[in-house]
Amino acid sequence: MFAELITIGDELLIGQVVDTNSAWMGRELNNIGIEVLRIVSVRDREEEILEAIDNAMKRANIVLVTGGLGPTKDDITKQTLCKYFNTELIFSEEVFENVKRVLAGKIPMNKLNKGQAMVPKNCTVINNPVGSASVSWFERDGKVLVSMPGVPQEMTAVMTESVLPKLHERFQTDVIMHQTFLVQHYPESVLAEKLEAWEVALPDCIKLAYLPKLGIIRLRLTGRGHDRKEVETLLNREKAKLETILGEDIFSEEDTPLEVIIGELLKKRKLTVSTAESCTGGSIAERLTSIAGSSEYFKGSIVAYSNEVKKDLLYVSSETLEKYGAVSEETVIEMVKGAMKALKTDCAVATSGIAGPGGGTPEKPVGTVWIAAGYKNEIRTYKQETNRGRAMNIERAGNNALLMLRDLLK
Amino acid sequence: MFAELITIGDELLIGQVVDTNSAWMGRELNNIGIEVLRIVSVRDREEEILEAIDNAMKRANIVLVTGGLGPTKDDITKQTLCKYFNTELIFSEEVFENVKRVLAGKIPMNKLNKGQAMVPKNCTVINNPVGSASVSWFERDGKVLVSMPGVPQEMTAVMTESVLPKLHERFQTDVIMHQTFLVQHYPESVLAEKLEAWEVALPDCIKLAYLPKLGIIRLRLTGRGHDRKEVETLLNREKAKLETILGEDIFSEEDTPLEVIIGELLKKRKLTVSTAESCTGGSIAERLTSIAGSSEYFKGSIVAYSNEVKKDLLYVSSETLEKYGAVSEETVIEMVKGAMKALKTDCAVATSGIAGPGGGTPEKPVGTVWIAAGYKNEIRTYKQETNRGRAMNIERAGNNALLMLRDLLK
Repeated sequence: MFAELITIGDELLIGQVVDTNSAWMGRELNNIGIEVLRIVSVRDREEEILEAIDNAMKRANIVLVTGGLGPTKDDITKQTLCKYFNTELIFSEEVFENVKRVLAGKIPMNKLNKGQAMVPKNCTVINNPVGSASVSWFERDGKVLVSMPGVPQEMTAVMTESVLPKLHERFQTDVIMHQTFLVQHYPESVLAEKLEAWEVALPDCIKLAYLPKLGIIRLRLTGRGHDRKEVETLLNREKAKLETILGEDIFSEEDTPLEVIIGELLKKRKLTVSTAESCTGGSIAERLTSIAGSSEYFKGSIVAYSNEVKKDLLYVSSETLEKYGAVSEETVIEMVKGAMKALKTDCAVATSGIAGPGGGTPEKPVGTVWIAAGYKNEIRTYKQETNRGRAMNIERAGNNALLMLRDLLK
Repeated sequence: MFAELITIGDELLIGQVVDTNSAWMGRELNNIGIEVLRIVSVRDREEEILEAIDNAMKRANIVLVTGGLGPTKDDITKQTLCKYFNTELIFSEEVFENVKRVLAGKIPMNKLNKGQAMVPKNCTVINNPVGSASVSWFERDGKVLVSMPGVPQEMTAVMTESVLPKLHERFQTDVIMHQTFLVQHYPESVLAEKLEAWEVALPDCIKLAYLPKLGIIRLRLTGRGHDRKEVETLLNREKAKLETILGEDIFSEEDTPLEVIIGELLKKRKLTVSTAESCTGGSIAERLTSIAGSSEYFKGSIVAYSNEVKKDLLYVSSETLEKYGAVSEETVIEMVKGAMKALKTDCAVATSGIAGPGGGTPEKPVGTVWIAAGYKNEIRTYKQETNRGRAMNIERAGNNALLMLRDLLK
């Protein structure tokens, strides 16, 4: 069963708004066995909308349209749908009641708002629980088109409450199941080589995708078929094989951010953490504290950009800094010890490197980052080397630091 | 001049990745007078990619394709483009050198990586400064198709360095000029009221847009027309009027991140800065250090999530914490003083608040953040109050802290 998504609005094409609706809809449709074939964003122009709808109706069984339902003049989706389905707008008492309920006396009822109660004649109107724009469900030749508002809160409410259950009921669909693995310790090409024999032998109904991201590779297995039990069995069989090949290099079997994984681990083991950051500049602390409830295990950080701060607050010795330099294994070891001591935590990570673009030397080129993870008396270090630009060097160092901490705590 | 964007990858259709590339590209293309007609996302299937490309080439002058250029089996864009343009893949020594440079001997060169150096025969190959995937520029019947990697960092680097300048040169387009103003001290509705009379009187070819973002309002004036001189003159006239109305509330006339503005100010005045962060969790330090060369003025930070760290490292007194609580004006004043003392800097900012979703009380609801900015003996404080969710509360506190520091240093 195939769906196409059409998002309407000039704001998408000029880049003022990022289309987050489609990804959400794709996930939710997948969950009920409907595959999205294509996502199309078009401007608020009648002929362009008509062309996009017509093409989508030819290719897919289900077309979901969002946007262009507001009360202002640039919103023309409803009129355009009437043209496509050879119908006209009529006044709906039921929708008008909903518009009144939503405005709730807070916004004066004017003719623009009243226009929200005009709906296409030959469609089923679906209630919008959180907004004044109406939702229309059209059927033609066994195919379905649903028009929904583009405001994310309204779209998700309408999809969850009405559209998804109705689609699930209306169409008998294939089962699609995903299994994600987060993998560490490999560059993509090396991992691909290691997995090649297994990948080639995958049954036709199971597909593998690589989604690499700065030190982490996300692998996604997707299984598809008529019978849920059968797909599940096949997927589990391949999952088991992959686990055998990669073992501990798989650090998560859900698509979870590293900072959440670390947080769960620390909470479970009742441990506290801190960071001592030079080149990552507080970004590891920022990631750890982006998680609600992180105060349970995160105590604090020292961002030590200058050598003075490294000495004063992290107890790095002048001797070490002079002899080995700030970007060295010796320094990050002292930094990670210093963080655990100064911030009184069970474990810590430390980074010191040359994020770039300036500051590189022949011995320590831009991109060189020393990383340490410590848990009580055990300390591990790693030298990160490739230069991928300042922002990516920093993000990758954060990933590596958190991965090392996880390895250490396992 | 019209462009269409095609993004390729199953991950977009199943909703694992939100397409942020298209919005960025839409904005940048607009800046050089190219309008985006349509954005299409398709799966990694040859026939679907071919159909999308063929339709786009019929409608638009410029087709920009992202994604499907990785070394793994699911990436088929290059082969598909060869089919569309009736050509074949050939080995490029130049691209191979770039692949080697990017891998930098750190990742072993295997046949998959080497495959990255295979490029379509009848296209112009464009250098990818930050990745191993090659960029292909095709021309046919006066139309241009460019294929780029889908990794945002690689796409933006390639677009900025090569594709946008080349498109600008290749096509003659309307002149579109933007002038951005960053404004502080106003809620959007109050600013809109203040600017109403001026806005209504704007000439037709000049448009005003409001882009509010967590304590900052970005105003964008856009002029459009055939003649550069004429557009420039009109834009400058309106710019001067706006400056008269808003005066010092305009804190930048470029769309410059706050951390850059602060950095410039500190460099000019040869001052050093530090931060003492509780609820912002290191994110202000992260922003300040995201700027290359920030080590010239940024010395370090103390992220003091626990009260113990506030006392031990920032010299906040137990008495203050007990009497007024961690989220109080008194505490942030001691924190900002503590940061300047412990990290030996001329100025500092401090934050302490309840980012949420938990931790609120009737007196101090979620969203309450106390902020202090200090410069030598002068300290200013501000209480941020509205709750907009954890991530936005944190980001807004960072904006406010940096705006306060800027006001203080002016």
